[in-house]
Amino acid sequence: MSHQSDTLHKPCGQTKGQGLRNQSPHPQVMELILHLRQTIEDYITQLETRHLQQDREPEKQGHSQATREQEAILVHLMCQVISLLYSGATSSLELQLPLHSLDIRGDVGGGQLAQSPREPDQLSHQLSDSEAAFTNYDLSNHGIAISALYHSTFRDFMAYQRDKYQEEKNPSGFINLGINENKLCVDLMTERLSRSDMNYIDDDLLQYSDWKGHAFLRKELARFFTHYSKAPAQLDPENVVVLNGCCSLFSVLTMVLFNPGEAILAPTPFYPGFTFASRLYSKVELICVHLDSEVTEAATCHFQLTVGKLEKALLDARLEGKKVKGLVLINPNNPLGDIYSRDTLNEYLEFAKRYNLHVIIDEIYMGTVFDESIPFHSVLSMESLPDPKKTHVIWGTSKGFGISGFRFGALYTTNKDLVSAVGAFGFLHGISGITQHKMCRLLQDREWIDNVYVPTNRSRLQEAHRFITNQLKALGIPFLNRGSGLYVWMNLKKYLDPCTFEEELLLYRRFLDHKLLLSPGKAYMCKEPGWFRLTFSDKPLHLKVAMQLFSRALVEQKQYLVEKQRKDALSE
Amino acid sequence: MSHQSDTLHKPCGQTKGQGLRNQSPHPQVMELILHLRQTIEDYITQLETRHLQQDREPEKQGHSQATREQEAILVHLMCQVISLLYSGATSSLELQLPLHSLDIRGDVGGGQLAQSPREPDQLSHQLSDSEAAFTNYDLSNHGIAISALYHSTFRDFMAYQRDKYQEEKNPSGFINLGINENKLCVDLMTERLSRSDMNYIDDDLLQYSDWKGHAFLRKELARFFTHYSKAPAQLDPENVVVLNGCCSLFSVLTMVLFNPGEAILAPTPFYPGFTFASRLYSKVELICVHLDSEVTEAATCHFQLTVGKLEKALLDARLEGKKVKGLVLINPNNPLGDIYSRDTLNEYLEFAKRYNLHVIIDEIYMGTVFDESIPFHSVLSMESLPDPKKTHVIWGTSKGFGISGFRFGALYTTNKDLVSAVGAFGFLHGISGITQHKMCRLLQDREWIDNVYVPTNRSRLQEAHRFITNQLKALGIPFLNRGSGLYVWMNLKKYLDPCTFEEELLLYRRFLDHKLLLSPGKAYMCKEPGWFRLTFSDKPLHLKVAMQLFSRALVEQKQYLVEKQRKDALSE
Repeated sequence: MSHQSDTLHKPCGQTKGQGLRNQSPHPQVMELILHLRQTIEDYITQLETRHLQQDREPEKQGHSQATREQEAILVHLMCQVISLLYSGATSSLELQLPLHSLDIRGDVGGGQLAQSPREPDQLSHQLSDSEAAFTNYDLSNHGIAISALYHSTFRDFMAYQRDKYQEEKNPSGFINLGINENKLCVDLMTERLSRSDMNYIDDDLLQYSDWKGHAFLRKELARFFTHYSKAPAQLDPENVVVLNGCCSLFSVLTMVLFNPGEAILAPTPFYPGFTFASRLYSKVELICVHLDSEVTEAATCHFQLTVGKLEKALLDARLEGKKVKGLVLINPNNPLGDIYSRDTLNEYLEFAKRYNLHVIIDEIYMGTVFDESIPFHSVLSMESLPDPKKTHVIWGTSKGFGISGFRFGALYTTNKDLVSAVGAFGFLHGISGITQHKMCRLLQDREWIDNVYVPTNRSRLQEAHRFITNQLKALGIPFLNRGSGLYVWMNLKKYLDPCTFEEELLLYRRFLDHKLLLSPGKAYMCKEPGWFRLTFSDKPLHLKVAMQLFSRALVEQKQYLVEKQRKDALSE
Repeated sequence: MSHQSDTLHKPCGQTKGQGLRNQSPHPQVMELILHLRQTIEDYITQLETRHLQQDREPEKQGHSQATREQEAILVHLMCQVISLLYSGATSSLELQLPLHSLDIRGDVGGGQLAQSPREPDQLSHQLSDSEAAFTNYDLSNHGIAISALYHSTFRDFMAYQRDKYQEEKNPSGFINLGINENKLCVDLMTERLSRSDMNYIDDDLLQYSDWKGHAFLRKELARFFTHYSKAPAQLDPENVVVLNGCCSLFSVLTMVLFNPGEAILAPTPFYPGFTFASRLYSKVELICVHLDSEVTEAATCHFQLTVGKLEKALLDARLEGKKVKGLVLINPNNPLGDIYSRDTLNEYLEFAKRYNLHVIIDEIYMGTVFDESIPFHSVLSMESLPDPKKTHVIWGTSKGFGISGFRFGALYTTNKDLVSAVGAFGFLHGISGITQHKMCRLLQDREWIDNVYVPTNRSRLQEAHRFITNQLKALGIPFLNRGSGLYVWMNLKKYLDPCTFEEELLLYRRFLDHKLLLSPGKAYMCKEPGWFRLTFSDKPLHLKVAMQLFSRALVEQKQYLVEKQRKDALSE
């Protein structure tokens, strides 16, 4: 660390400081900075004096009360300066909301879904011009933007929430194969969660805990990861942070790792939950690394992620002046179902190291690998990571364990600074103590996991996957067959004419009219129109009914296409 | 704040610093301090240069990239110094002393705690070479700032978490009367939560719900508020949003109601949890409305909030160019214990309407009114609100029900746009379904609430309050006696000489040395040094031990003052 006397020695007296303090656009910060400078000088003098004394009286080696007090004042001042700088008192760290974030066209996917004819007042609400919105809403710009984005993203999900299919009670309700929930083992889970060990309560569970999560749970998670991620050595509970869900973790990570305006690479198709999460708070930009459905020499399978593609996206972004600082990977992948091989994974991590990128790797689908012939490799299993301090794993119980309603996510990282920063956000993303206890008991019960839950879950996933894919085969619909995940990524291009995102949206709506929710590729920022994700981890009866609705909608779509072609032919 | 040029001007160049750095018993701190000093000089120079430029080119008033970068480095360095001072790196010589003497001395309170012999690798981590730390830190500016703020805010709380007082097992642990938890009825709550109706599980509880909270819970909350807040008509479940705690709600409200840089009025002393929450995500500025302890013609009781004070603070802020858009009220008040009369409340709301302000009113202490002669008026009980679309109530179960570990908070507002915007943030602030179920059952059980919980809680609060206030009276310590809350706001000015915040901090640390946590007034942005908040809602045994520690610390403080005065007299 250099320490140049010329800087320190140049005249910098009271006049300078005082003058600046009065003119400064942020007088409070300046006041504190000047006070801090003086305190530092006093502190140095104090220590110097003590050293001279100690030379004379070497037995008095203790830290003096005076020094200690000065340190307290130093800390106090520094916290104040930090806090003011952060609060935007200098307006340097403060960002104005960019106009484009008011854009509610819903490029996150399915934006126009908001405008279904069923809710006219909501429609007019959303179509109101932004001028009017400013004067009428009485919310902040960000509040308005998020509210709009939320409606466009979750409107159909909310409709489903209000009107769920039930065989007896509501046979005309929605079946949701658009959302990624694992409903195959609710029976097992309900039974396990009902056992008496789950209902333990003590004082600590009812009171505030460490914001990183209760120590007992972080300890159990370290054990769990060590075992199921096949770590080469025991993992450290101090590297674990628990928040209420993986999306919360993703949001907080983008907040504490990247400055506003910095960018991260996201291979697309990409999980829209993260896209939404990244917009609520942080100002990070997602740079799409568009994968192609086509098989080529460089990409030997559909939608293959290669280092070449990552590198090209990064360099292109840099040419546009963007600061690319991170990469997010989902393994096993959502929505593709890809499981990265150990070598491939290592190549991605080496690439990230080369370009000094943080890697957020989401392994939430770890427990959904139903094809036993395909090995899954957690980054936690690797003997050595290319850049351990910049490799951060997140995991949750929503998918493998099928309990998305638990709102539970865990981070593992050896970057202590990151643990500390994410932990601070636990203040606003905490989980109830009783839920933490239940989670701990669940993860502890290896016998139940290994002998009951995992084998049953796997065989039911296989069965459901077989049923759905057989149906797709019968309909002649191409899909990726990758052996993990709760979904298939399928190609409905042949039902679009022309093959555009507008037509994809119309097809999506046709499914909706038949009370079936699916996820259109546009929501995943997929480059090519026509792809849909269909979740198969639902009850057999639901799958059966859903596939009837699906087939019916496609028949209708075909008729529509025929009619359209006839009209087109006539008008030529 | 004094600023003496003679201290700043004396020669203090490289030789001095370098020499000291090499001899210093804590070279890393010194290294950083010297680097910090230089950075401060550079920063001042930079700003001065910019001011000269701006005089020439007044249109370029923005904060330059260079300044911004220097601020980031400043923040970064300060965080490192804070972290090292906390870790006790300066007390390296003391490491040679017996291990028990490493215990708590606490610069800003328990600093050396981090170096307990139990955490050797943490120690080595913190003592790792500062150069390496500098290059490895690798978080965003905001991540660094929040991490530092978190540590300065929660450090002593974390020390308490690791070392709680237990009569048998850990009689030398911390007693925490600094945090606002109600531990008086844990027995009742544990019994109620253990009944079989609590352990119900169904599919919906295990899956994603409406992000605003499950419909069954919002329905029950509307009923609960209608009854216990004495609403003139049935309240609407569609106006309720459930998030994981009132601090989350406050944070989200500041995010969706106010644009970055806008300001809200916060009467001080003010709850620090909201201050912290407001800094994690939003960029809203809290404008202190400083209340005076003095009784005057205009303010007929201590720390009285008047419309005059609100108006003056608002107009002063406007004169400084600030956009004041909101007001936050806590009723019953934390830390004062004030309960606003219906008329007073109405005056505040009328004031807010006059100036077009949103009002966030926190009624979380509703269930802590232990003096039955003082009526509590919820804003929800008012026949008509001056500006209903801009009046937003939050409530939670942490205080009255004493279950802060549940992480539960509810918003009631008739502003539909706000419901929608806050609901969107439920995506990242959700609560587990099983916790929502338990909460619903609890609120439903009116018989238990009315006949068991409320009367027991009230009488235990009265008893604990009586015990503590009798002790304070015996010690001749003035305090506010207001009939609500879990705490007393007391005046320890007579133990400070001079009466400054530095001395207040030293007294706080003296309590900490005695293993007692209290909350100093500074944390509440109180204008006058010497005030402390003491929470009395703890077990009788804890209160008894705590008051012994309290008295002991005050005796020591008195001795310290006498000694100090003696020295001062001699030196005159």
